[in-house]
Amino acid sequence: LLCTGDELLNGATLNTHARALGEAFKQMGVTLTRETSIRDDRETMAKFIAEAIGRVDVLVISGGLGPTRDDVTREAVAQALGRELVVHRAFERILAKRYESVGRAFTEDRRRQAVLVEDAKLIRNPVGSAPGQRIQTEGATIYLLPGPPREFNGILEDSLLEEWQSQVETRVHEQLHMIAGIGESEVERALEGVTFADGTILGFRASPFGLELRLTSEQPDDLEAGSAILYDVFGDAIYADQRKTLPEAVTELLLKRRATVATAESCTGGLVAKFLTDQAGSSAYFLGSIVAYHNEVKERLLGVPAEIFPVHGAVSAPCAEAMAAGAKERLGSDYALSLTGIAGPGGGTDTKPVGLVFIGLATPDGVQSQEFRLPGNRDLVRTFAAMRAFDMLRKALK
Amino acid sequence: LLCTGDELLNGATLNTHARALGEAFKQMGVTLTRETSIRDDRETMAKFIAEAIGRVDVLVISGGLGPTRDDVTREAVAQALGRELVVHRAFERILAKRYESVGRAFTEDRRRQAVLVEDAKLIRNPVGSAPGQRIQTEGATIYLLPGPPREFNGILEDSLLEEWQSQVETRVHEQLHMIAGIGESEVERALEGVTFADGTILGFRASPFGLELRLTSEQPDDLEAGSAILYDVFGDAIYADQRKTLPEAVTELLLKRRATVATAESCTGGLVAKFLTDQAGSSAYFLGSIVAYHNEVKERLLGVPAEIFPVHGAVSAPCAEAMAAGAKERLGSDYALSLTGIAGPGGGTDTKPVGLVFIGLATPDGVQSQEFRLPGNRDLVRTFAAMRAFDMLRKALK
Repeated sequence: LLCTGDELLNGATLNTHARALGEAFKQMGVTLTRETSIRDDRETMAKFIAEAIGRVDVLVISGGLGPTRDDVTREAVAQALGRELVVHRAFERILAKRYESVGRAFTEDRRRQAVLVEDAKLIRNPVGSAPGQRIQTEGATIYLLPGPPREFNGILEDSLLEEWQSQVETRVHEQLHMIAGIGESEVERALEGVTFADGTILGFRASPFGLELRLTSEQPDDLEAGSAILYDVFGDAIYADQRKTLPEAVTELLLKRRATVATAESCTGGLVAKFLTDQAGSSAYFLGSIVAYHNEVKERLLGVPAEIFPVHGAVSAPCAEAMAAGAKERLGSDYALSLTGIAGPGGGTDTKPVGLVFIGLATPDGVQSQEFRLPGNRDLVRTFAAMRAFDMLRKALK
Repeated sequence: LLCTGDELLNGATLNTHARALGEAFKQMGVTLTRETSIRDDRETMAKFIAEAIGRVDVLVISGGLGPTRDDVTREAVAQALGRELVVHRAFERILAKRYESVGRAFTEDRRRQAVLVEDAKLIRNPVGSAPGQRIQTEGATIYLLPGPPREFNGILEDSLLEEWQSQVETRVHEQLHMIAGIGESEVERALEGVTFADGTILGFRASPFGLELRLTSEQPDDLEAGSAILYDVFGDAIYADQRKTLPEAVTELLLKRRATVATAESCTGGLVAKFLTDQAGSSAYFLGSIVAYHNEVKERLLGVPAEIFPVHGAVSAPCAEAMAAGAKERLGSDYALSLTGIAGPGGGTDTKPVGLVFIGLATPDGVQSQEFRLPGNRDLVRTFAAMRAFDMLRKALK
C-alpha cells in the first residue's frame, strides 16, 4: 500500500487506509506486507512505484487523483511504467454533465479526473468524482484509489473486495454477532475457557455502540457450531447477527412493531434523541423528546412531582420513572425512555458518584427503571447510558 | 519514520505515529519525508534500515522493543549496522527492582528490555518499561522508540522534542484563527489572490465544527501582518484565535454573559442540545430542549399555531420563529434556538429540497430566523445546521 499526500506527513491527517486495507485483506487470508506514505512529489513517487512493482503482486496506491495541480499520481505511475496518459472520453462527458448539473464550471483542472494511465481500466467511485484505476503490468496489478477515506473505503466496498475475494483460493467464512448491555471485560471473562473447533478464530471489536464478535473459519460447519456456543454463552445479549449498531437494531424493531417512542433526557442532553433520528425515516417511530436539564423544566414540561427532588433527588429511580411516564403521556408515544444521572466530571458525591445513571422506561404495560454505574469520562458515561437505554427498549420490544 | 508491527498491517491497530511525529516536525520547520510500516520480521527490517540510513538524516523507528520474542527491532538494527548487542547493566538493575516492587518475576524475556545496540544511548521512557535508544551512525541518527502510542508520544514530549528543537536553527511561530458560518469552498474563494510576506505559510484544516486557518512564519512580525490580513478578509467570521470548536466558543460566551439558552429542534433531533451539554458545567447556561419531530408536538409543547402548517409548512421561517419563541417562553431561557429542515435523504421536494433548513433565534430583543441550503448527506446536513445555529447565537451574544 502506497499512500500519497503531504497531509499524511505534516500532521494534518490521520492515515486510516492501512488499517482498512489490512483488515479487508486479513479476512481473505491475504497479507498486507508493507505500507508507505510519501509526499506529493512526482519523481519520488515514480521511483518508489518502479521499485515496488518488482517486489509485490498487488500495489494499491491512494491519493493524488483529484483535480488540483498537486494531484500527480496519474503522472507518476505513467512515468514509472513508461506509459502515456489518455483521456477517457466517455467518462469525461459524464463528469462534464455532473459539474453542469450542480452549476459549476468544468475547468481544465477538473477535466484531469478523466485522465487514465494507458491501458488502465476505470473503477467506479460511488461517492466522489475521481474514479479509481486498475493497471495490469507484467509482474503486478496496480490499483489507484482516491485519498479521502470515504472514497477509498467506498470503492473498496463497492467493487474491489468482491473482485479480490474471487481471486483468493480459500474462502474464509465469517459470522458476526453483535452484543449489547455487557461491558468489554465481562465479555472477555465470559469467553475464558470457551474453545472452538481448530481453525475457528474468534475476533473481538469493542465500541460503545455494540460489541462485535467475529467468528471466522474455512469450514461452514465449524462456524455454525461456534455460533451456537456464543448463543449459549451470551443468549439474549446478542442483538444482531450482522454488523449493526444497537440504535439501528432498535429502530428496526420499532418500525417492525409499528411502535412510537419519545425520550425525556437529563444527563444525556438529547443524545438518545439524536441517535433515534440518525436514520432517515425516523419520523415513523420518533415523536419527540424533552431535554430537561433543570429540575424546574422536569416539573413543568414532564410533570415530575416537585416533592421528588427534596426526597429522592433528580438522580433517582422515582425521578427516572416520573420522567418516562411524563414523556409518554405528554408526547403521546407508545414507549418512552428517560435518563437522569451524573455524567461528570463534577457533581458526584459519595452516595451519588459520577457514572451513576437511572434509566426509566414507560411501556404500554407500565413504568420501570434500572440503576447503572457506568465507567469512563463524561463523553463515555453519556454514550454508555444512551446504549443501556436502547438495550432496555430492545428487550421490551422483543 | 519506520513503524514496525504486524498489528499495523492486519487491521488490528490504527497507526497514529506518522501524524504525531509529522505535526511535531512541522512545528519545527522540519519535514517528515516518508513513513513506512513493516511487519515484525528481522531480515526485512534489517534490509530496510540499511537502505534507509543512506537516504535520511534522522530515522525514527517505532515498535519491537518490548520483552516478547517477536520484539526484534534491537536485533534488526544491530544486524543492519554490523554492531553487537550489549546489556546496559545499570538499567538492568533498575528494571529488576521495578519488577520486584510489583511482585513480578524478572524473567529472561523481560531482561531483553535492557539490551542496547552497541554505542547506543538510552532514552528514558516516562510511562513504560522499555526505554528508547539513540544511535549515531556516520550518516544518520537513529532513534528507537516503543510502539504503544502512549509511550511513543511520552518519550517525544519528555525529551526528544526539546532535543530536536535545540538542533533546529530557526524557530517557526504559528497563529491560529478559527472560522465559522462560511463553507470550505467560500473560504478558499475568499483567499484567492490574498498574498502574505515571503516565508509566511497559510495552512487550512476543515471540519464541520469550525475551519482552522494556521499561519506559520519564522518572523513574528510577518505573522502579525498575516493575522491582520485574515481579519480584513474574514472579520466577524473568526470566532477564536486558538484551537476551539464553535460550540466550545459559544458556551464560553454564554458563561461570560451569564445567559441561559434552550432549544427547539426538529430536523437536528437533539443534536444542538447534545453539543450544548458536551461540556461539564453546562447546567449553568442550558435549561433544556424540546425535540419536536411531529407537528402535533410542535403545537402542543412549543405552542406553534396550528394554522402555520397548512399555510407555510413545518419547514418555514414562520414555524422556526414560532418554535424559538415557544422554547424561550416555555423553558424560561434568555435565548432560544430552533431548527426545522429537511435532512434527507427522503422528504425533499422541488420547492423544499433536501438541505433546506430554517433556524430561528429568540433573544431578549425579539425573534429572527434565517434560511440555509446546506450540502451533504443526512449526517452532514444535521451537523452543518447545528453549527449555523451556534453561529447565529454567537453573533447575537457578541
